[in-house]
Amino acid sequence: MYGSTFGNILKISTWGESHGAGLGVVVDGCPAGLPLSEEDVQRYLNRRKPGQSRYATPRREEDAAEILSGVFEGKTTGTPISMMIRNKDQRSRDYSEIAGYYRPGHADYNYDQKYGFRDYRGGGRSSGRETIGRVAAGAIASKILEQLGITLSTYTLSIGPVAIDKGQFDETAIWENPFYMPDKAAALKAEEYLKTCMKDHNSSGGMIECIIKNVPGGLGEPAFEKLDANLGKAIFSIGAVKAVEIGDGLQAAEATGLTNNDPYACDTKGSVRKLSNHAGGITGGISDGCNTDIILRAAIKPTPSIAAPQQTVNRDGENIEITIKGRHDPVIVPRAVVVVESMAALVIADALLGSMTSRMDKIIKFFR
Amino acid sequence: MYGSTFGNILKISTWGESHGAGLGVVVDGCPAGLPLSEEDVQRYLNRRKPGQSRYATPRREEDAAEILSGVFEGKTTGTPISMMIRNKDQRSRDYSEIAGYYRPGHADYNYDQKYGFRDYRGGGRSSGRETIGRVAAGAIASKILEQLGITLSTYTLSIGPVAIDKGQFDETAIWENPFYMPDKAAALKAEEYLKTCMKDHNSSGGMIECIIKNVPGGLGEPAFEKLDANLGKAIFSIGAVKAVEIGDGLQAAEATGLTNNDPYACDTKGSVRKLSNHAGGITGGISDGCNTDIILRAAIKPTPSIAAPQQTVNRDGENIEITIKGRHDPVIVPRAVVVVESMAALVIADALLGSMTSRMDKIIKFFR
Amino acid sequence: MYGSTFGNILKISTWGESHGAGLGVVVDGCPAGLPLSEEDVQRYLNRRKPGQSRYATPRREEDAAEILSGVFEGKTTGTPISMMIRNKDQRSRDYSEIAGYYRPGHADYNYDQKYGFRDYRGGGRSSGRETIGRVAAGAIASKILEQLGITLSTYTLSIGPVAIDKGQFDETAIWENPFYMPDKAAALKAEEYLKTCMKDHNSSGGMIECIIKNVPGGLGEPAFEKLDANLGKAIFSIGAVKAVEIGDGLQAAEATGLTNNDPYACDTKGSVRKLSNHAGGITGGISDGCNTDIILRAAIKPTPSIAAPQQTVNRDGENIEITIKGRHDPVIVPRAVVVVESMAALVIADALLGSMTSRMDKIIKFFR
Amino acid sequence: MYGSTFGNILKISTWGESHGAGLGVVVDGCPAGLPLSEEDVQRYLNRRKPGQSRYATPRREEDAAEILSGVFEGKTTGTPISMMIRNKDQRSRDYSEIAGYYRPGHADYNYDQKYGFRDYRGGGRSSGRETIGRVAAGAIASKILEQLGITLSTYTLSIGPVAIDKGQFDETAIWENPFYMPDKAAALKAEEYLKTCMKDHNSSGGMIECIIKNVPGGLGEPAFEKLDANLGKAIFSIGAVKAVEIGDGLQAAEATGLTNNDPYACDTKGSVRKLSNHAGGITGGISDGCNTDIILRAAIKPTPSIAAPQQTVNRDGENIEITIKGRHDPVIVPRAVVVVESMAALVIADALLGSMTSRMDKIIKFFR
Repeated sequence: MYGSTFGNILKISTWGESHGAGLGVVVDGCPAGLPLSEEDVQRYLNRRKPGQSRYATPRREEDAAEILSGVFEGKTTGTPISMMIRNKDQRSRDYSEIAGYYRPGHADYNYDQKYGFRDYRGGGRSSGRETIGRVAAGAIASKILEQLGITLSTYTLSIGPVAIDKGQFDETAIWENPFYMPDKAAALKAEEYLKTCMKDHNSSGGMIECIIKNVPGGLGEPAFEKLDANLGKAIFSIGAVKAVEIGDGLQAAEATGLTNNDPYACDTKGSVRKLSNHAGGITGGISDGCNTDIILRAAIKPTPSIAAPQQTVNRDGENIEITIKGRHDPVIVPRAVVVVESMAALVIADALLGSMTSRMDKIIKFFR
Repeated sequence: MYGSTFGNILKISTWGESHGAGLGVVVDGCPAGLPLSEEDVQRYLNRRKPGQSRYATPRREEDAAEILSGVFEGKTTGTPISMMIRNKDQRSRDYSEIAGYYRPGHADYNYDQKYGFRDYRGGGRSSGRETIGRVAAGAIASKILEQLGITLSTYTLSIGPVAIDKGQFDETAIWENPFYMPDKAAALKAEEYLKTCMKDHNSSGGMIECIIKNVPGGLGEPAFEKLDANLGKAIFSIGAVKAVEIGDGLQAAEATGLTNNDPYACDTKGSVRKLSNHAGGITGGISDGCNTDIILRAAIKPTPSIAAPQQTVNRDGENIEITIKGRHDPVIVPRAVVVVESMAALVIADALLGSMTSRMDKIIKFFR
Repeated sequence: MYGSTFGNILKISTWGESHGAGLGVVVDGCPAGLPLSEEDVQRYLNRRKPGQSRYATPRREEDAAEILSGVFEGKTTGTPISMMIRNKDQRSRDYSEIAGYYRPGHADYNYDQKYGFRDYRGGGRSSGRETIGRVAAGAIASKILEQLGITLSTYTLSIGPVAIDKGQFDETAIWENPFYMPDKAAALKAEEYLKTCMKDHNSSGGMIECIIKNVPGGLGEPAFEKLDANLGKAIFSIGAVKAVEIGDGLQAAEATGLTNNDPYACDTKGSVRKLSNHAGGITGGISDGCNTDIILRAAIKPTPSIAAPQQTVNRDGENIEITIKGRHDPVIVPRAVVVVESMAALVIADALLGSMTSRMDKIIKFFR
Repeated sequence: MYGSTFGNILKISTWGESHGAGLGVVVDGCPAGLPLSEEDVQRYLNRRKPGQSRYATPRREEDAAEILSGVFEGKTTGTPISMMIRNKDQRSRDYSEIAGYYRPGHADYNYDQKYGFRDYRGGGRSSGRETIGRVAAGAIASKILEQLGITLSTYTLSIGPVAIDKGQFDETAIWENPFYMPDKAAALKAEEYLKTCMKDHNSSGGMIECIIKNVPGGLGEPAFEKLDANLGKAIFSIGAVKAVEIGDGLQAAEATGLTNNDPYACDTKGSVRKLSNHAGGITGGISDGCNTDIILRAAIKPTPSIAAPQQTVNRDGENIEITIKGRHDPVIVPRAVVVVESMAALVIADALLGSMTSRMDKIIKFFR
């Protein structure tokens, strides 16, 4: 069955393998008239590009996006936007050895179970490079949202045990350290922690948070197409995610109704506000549309590719010990930040378009 | 846009409101030849039926399922299975007052934002009664899985601060306390905690865990139709869920590669096993298919309907204080257990059917 | 795989068998605020009700629709609308004999091939009664279109060799003869023809035409979601349809560019008109939105249930001769008229809703 | 809303414009292990390549397919197959004039209505070149079907008034004339007819027939996912199609039950056969799976681009007369033959995969 297609109205289809000719995406259902350039896409792609710090794989890829269709004279035409990123630095030799065994924490065994064989070069489709198409599409979704004043802010909340101090939250700091942490002091501590991990041939997990501002009310549909349900699917579809939280998340399980309910109040101008935001901007699966931001968090597992020796089996059913060579991120959290943002943007844009058909009176007005 | 339709191959459409004529579901895509009776469905529905303990709403509903189509001589025919549950105890008077204001923690305001008005009787479509259709469909999905030896075990992990002791895990205990907790001592403590909540006109959240055994390898698709992505969507689509974890979940963010990777080993018969299960039975979005169970957890927020006074606004934009009357669960976690199980069963059954087209050699063999 | 679900944004799921408890439909995605009553639905259902003339099966069914959800105080709420029609006159005895053999022209053999067995009572799901859910949903789609001034007119174009004279087209005549023919003289000839068919234990096919007026421009999407492609699917999904034509249809194959192209002209007010309508109101899969009506035709095969002896085989693989007993329509064309109209209305309404997201400027204006 | 995505399980997304960088398709859901090379795809593409006779546009395009993903060591991997065809001969100057007016028979006006503007170069997305992606995907679908012994034969039935003589049907002739007609004499007459058309600056329509052999029984789903419904959609989604017939098609409307029903018989080996095939291999929307071929026909309208003067309006609302310059096919029927075959192959392959989940007993056997 298909697996690489996502979205209800704004539909994307990603393709590509780590060491194939390239990767890309077709974005189908983007409204016409949106200003779009390759630079818009590139800005997003650059945030996940490898080789930008010593805490990311040194693989050298420009990850330059080419827009192949759907844009005419600087604007989207309403027809599918195809984007491609050629692979350049495909050192297949590095990976040939892994053809015969199953790397712990990777999908090698699972792909073999499912398909009978696999493109073993760099993990093939299960590689993190698969997210390139998502980010290229996410750049477009962000542009749609931007037209309506909706903005996303995404950053690293923690790396291993090193968490930011929310009291020291500094939006500008995000762009000033290699981890996209909104807290300089925490970023320095994270750096120390990662140095230890690298020395130990080990790797680290971490948390990412995404805040979405100015989302209109009424996005998301009852029952299964709830806004949080689709955010949940979108974020869990990122390879390394093991938990997703909306609003207070796990803490809600320990809370009581009195502390967890968000009371409403009217300000002097008569507009409705919430006095707290435990719900994370979504109630009943539908965006609040008052003063509350949408808040979500993702827990990212440690990079499975580590240089320390590991126990595993080979395709012949023998117990072996392996040491993974090659170029790997000691932590993928920083590069996953823009992937989380991209997926969130796609879900919000899709729900936004979907919400336009909710009310007969607005439909009549639209067509008048 | 539609919102009450779920699934790729086994597709369900739920319908119904808390105080309308009834609720139900159409299950489209169920294979022919599955033995199915109304008793099969009822057994599942009874697990979420109200009025079964003093820790659940005393609303009196038999929640009796009628199968209207798709079953002939005790077996499914391959055509849509329509099931209906009539509402009996519709005390609309209890709810008339809430038409004019927005209850904190409920979707009242959000539905008004989206649709311009709402069926305010008992929350209408946003009521927990919406899950009846899911559970009826979940009973069918479970039956499909049962035919293949796949089983689900779902239970309450915690209520508020009272968590089970995993060392004392007792499968049979689940059925012997009103909270579906696999630990008698914890259930007693939870009872005490809830008594306090009720005395304080307050409510409690909690955690649910679901374990799925004997899932074949190869279920789930790369990229967006990952098994965990669809489980994430399914569980987040349950109204009160604020966080979902797979395997180690949030803890993965603090782990290192060395501790988080699950090493492989071959046993003496040559079959592959994992020596740990931090991943929760899914890697790269695809089921492991070796000895690992699929493990997921859901954080449930406290029941928003509490009898204590709360601050809110009315439709005229005035700040008011309200006290919610009527019959409410002090905790919805126990009744949500079977809802989580139903959604998980639907996702696994759907992925199972979807996985049949993964390999050309098996397709050729199938049609020979 | 699912089969009874239709539509992209306005999604319907029909269910039910000829001789089961009943039939129905869930309509998911209907905008909120549409006035809707059971009478609205019943008016549509009455047009396909059996037993209304001697040229239709005498099966006695009231086909009374019950709306079970999604409507509150006379208006749709935006949540799924579930409708049910109970079967009353289920003379299962009439049909028991057919369990053992395959009726020519029916799907008996095909269902056995697909599912291994079948609900043989009256054809089960493959019965024409399956269309009840479509018509109930079509009534809702028509109501949506009516709000925007879009109207459908559907009628019988021919019964067997008896065609209407387009020069004598009389809209009011449609409602004054049992065949829904817009030509009284042709209706009388059709009556004579059908009397002969019935005397010969034979049946007749015929043609239906549907004209849709005031469709805004821009409905339908490039490539696969073309308006005509979805109309084609919708009409071909009606059991007895063997051909579908849009505009000039088959004649286009014999035409030349000079005769087939529809020239444009501006009237004195500057609005664009087409000087002919060979295309049938759709070009490039998108509605014209000028003065042209959408025009489609469906060829309906003769009722397969005939009382004359026929050659066939039984489930034991023996050649036998059968004579089908029971109550059958000598022609199903008149009762299929409202089914064609319903499917067309569903497609147009779905495309209408889908077209709202085509342009960024209109989206921005919508949310302002 | 998206429009360029097609299929339920085997899903394709096409992209590209006539005069953009290129065109292509992503095929998602193709089973793993299918042998596939660029030559397989090229063979199909060559059948629609321009410039191969004087009865087709002289535009010079190699239409060389590049497979960018989803194939490893000569076999599909189960992950998305991305294919691209670069545009070479993009003479944009030829088309600049049409930016300002609406060509009769083209979608210019409709795209402007829908999107507010359009990529006017060669019709942009509404160009016949859009079908390149379909044909590349169709080549893969054909390969899947080939593995199961299912074959397709597609040819031109008529060009304008010149039809083949079914009594002279000659399969090999298809490949020996520029019109893909299975009748040499008819092909010669068609040539004469087209010469006249070209001399008159005119163009011609025609009919295409597709025969599909060895389709297993049980493909297609009840109600809306009927095999003929999806064939209908697929064929109507080809730009120039104005009518689709299955089996006897339009003639069924004039037939009687006695002549239209296909009687069953058992041969000496006990296998079921049909004694006629008026239904075209599909009954109740499900493939027969006995001796009957699936038969469908498409009516193709004349090429709208003609060199004769035509009346139309420009974007300023003025009545004008235009003469279309540039390179155009006097008839597109021959080049559309492989497009019809591709769409049919995609539908059959999709239904084949979808049919695997119909029966519980076969599912159990599959997973054992």
